[in-house]
Amino acid sequence: MRVAGLISGTSVDGIDVAVVDIGETIQVVAAKTVPYRAEVREAILSVSNTQTHTATIARLNFLLGELFAEAVRASGVPLETIELIGSHGQTIFHEGEPIEFLGRPIASTLQLGEAAVIAERTGIETIADFRPSDMAAGGKGAPLVPFLDYQLFRHPQRSRIALNIGGIANVTVLAVNSRPEDVLAFDTGPGNMILDVLAPPFDRDGELARAGRVNESLLAKLLADPYYHRDPPKSCGREQYGAEFVRQTGIDIATATELTARTIALAIERYPDTQDVIVSGGGTHNKYLMERLAALLKPRLATSAEFGIDPDAKEAILFALLAFETHQRRAGNLPSATGARKPAILGKIARP
Amino acid sequence: MRVAGLISGTSVDGIDVAVVDIGETIQVVAAKTVPYRAEVREAILSVSNTQTHTATIARLNFLLGELFAEAVRASGVPLETIELIGSHGQTIFHEGEPIEFLGRPIASTLQLGEAAVIAERTGIETIADFRPSDMAAGGKGAPLVPFLDYQLFRHPQRSRIALNIGGIANVTVLAVNSRPEDVLAFDTGPGNMILDVLAPPFDRDGELARAGRVNESLLAKLLADPYYHRDPPKSCGREQYGAEFVRQTGIDIATATELTARTIALAIERYPDTQDVIVSGGGTHNKYLMERLAALLKPRLATSAEFGIDPDAKEAILFALLAFETHQRRAGNLPSATGARKPAILGKIARP
Repeated sequence: MRVAGLISGTSVDGIDVAVVDIGETIQVVAAKTVPYRAEVREAILSVSNTQTHTATIARLNFLLGELFAEAVRASGVPLETIELIGSHGQTIFHEGEPIEFLGRPIASTLQLGEAAVIAERTGIETIADFRPSDMAAGGKGAPLVPFLDYQLFRHPQRSRIALNIGGIANVTVLAVNSRPEDVLAFDTGPGNMILDVLAPPFDRDGELARAGRVNESLLAKLLADPYYHRDPPKSCGREQYGAEFVRQTGIDIATATELTARTIALAIERYPDTQDVIVSGGGTHNKYLMERLAALLKPRLATSAEFGIDPDAKEAILFALLAFETHQRRAGNLPSATGARKPAILGKIARP
Repeated sequence: MRVAGLISGTSVDGIDVAVVDIGETIQVVAAKTVPYRAEVREAILSVSNTQTHTATIARLNFLLGELFAEAVRASGVPLETIELIGSHGQTIFHEGEPIEFLGRPIASTLQLGEAAVIAERTGIETIADFRPSDMAAGGKGAPLVPFLDYQLFRHPQRSRIALNIGGIANVTVLAVNSRPEDVLAFDTGPGNMILDVLAPPFDRDGELARAGRVNESLLAKLLADPYYHRDPPKSCGREQYGAEFVRQTGIDIATATELTARTIALAIERYPDTQDVIVSGGGTHNKYLMERLAALLKPRLATSAEFGIDPDAKEAILFALLAFETHQRRAGNLPSATGARKPAILGKIARP
């Protein structure tokens, strides 16, 4: 089945689209990022986890539906060959842990990109809103990517870790011949987020960090944060390594890059049997960071490209796969990763 | 098929639930209104078409999902006998006509009441978000009720009008033996909205209006509004007859009730062949208003109760029917009523 996957990430750069053929294996047919116009990006940031007008959220939801539909066209794959679309949408709020709200414990999440618009404009059945189903089943709605890691990378003889370096870095631990319920996943700490604040859009190839000098005493102090030494499950707050962190610590780009590499290494060292670390996400473009990881880690380091998965398209591929699972009436969350009470069929189906 | 329908209306009193058996006919098994706690009602009003925090919208969406699921239980019908749920949700924004937004014409709507939560808590497939699908097809997302009126009330020999007196009053015109594309629907003007401002929750049985005296010169002036004399399609703004209208006109309750009755009569008189007027909505409880309508109108006046449809449950029944249509992969909008370019399969499907 040919399925398109869509996501716009927390960096709000644009819409990632991947078209994949799903059968015995997952074959990527096309992958692309369609950048947002500046005013659309600003509008998204203006409603994300902040004061806004209800009208802006409603209008943006429909506008993003149009842009997501156009991103499917922009993939270059003829629409009539695509049978299904899975769209993550654009997260503008996420609170995986319940808080007290009007007298009840409520966890919640909100993604924009109206599925009814995507379905109508493309003529293709569209599944969206994957996270609420996991949260309704008691999960944190994240991470969802371990489901894809499990499908793609588990191995009968090799112990592997899938590492994604996005704003936050996270790992999926795939022991030899693991079953779904064995899969562990957690955030290791910062990914590109600190670098993004220090050198926007970020020190893409790492040359600024390479030329700088690590502040060893600051690094030691930051590495003492109990988070990095705590057992999983654990997850970072999305705001944890933002502008406020940079201001408070006075961190420089060389030290931030080293902190990223060292905290990833700390996480991976917990699993000394690991043979392969398979990296994806924007961080794979950071040559210096990848060199530091190669120096710090014992297992073989590879990017997901070696396995046929464009490191920048992994999340879009994930939502194509999750749509496919829902279409087959199969669950798409891994309770061991999200904390859900049970496997859940994810998403809501809109038909053209 | 046994289907539950759910809606919380613009008056934000509570959740209407109706359970119906749909086959050759539509049989109502149970109908009930589950009132909101005051703080929930206030929270809904605090995000409706106004400045708010994205977090409040996200949290309220999940909380209302819980309350909608509980309303299905409160119907008293055993959950294991219900096969499908159709939930309209709670509208917090609706803009049926496109406006210019970031350089594009965008119409939009936003309903809360997370379908994934309803599906998980009840164990029943849940369809929600009916309006966006019609709007994606170029419609105004409203009115949807003519689809139900057409199913329930069209007659091979009789010319009928279905009149709903909610906040705004609206009619569905069903000529003898009409086809779907013949159905006309439009707002006649105020329903309970002015009365609601003058005597909250409203002059329920109309005794205040009966005891008052109509200000004839004000009434004549208000009836001169070109809206009432314009050909359909036409629709009123939801804010049109609110507190601002009362302040500007200095209208009293007797005059407001008479304005409501006379503008309904003006609309119905456009169709002199009409034999039956079938009334539903909160206005049916207003004895004085119903007496005035009976005096002003030539056709026979009946409430929908005569046809087995609880006048207070009509909208909840509608969303049960629309879910059923979507489940059968059939369209649920009437393009002649909403202005859509084509019939559309409405809603998004969440599976437990």
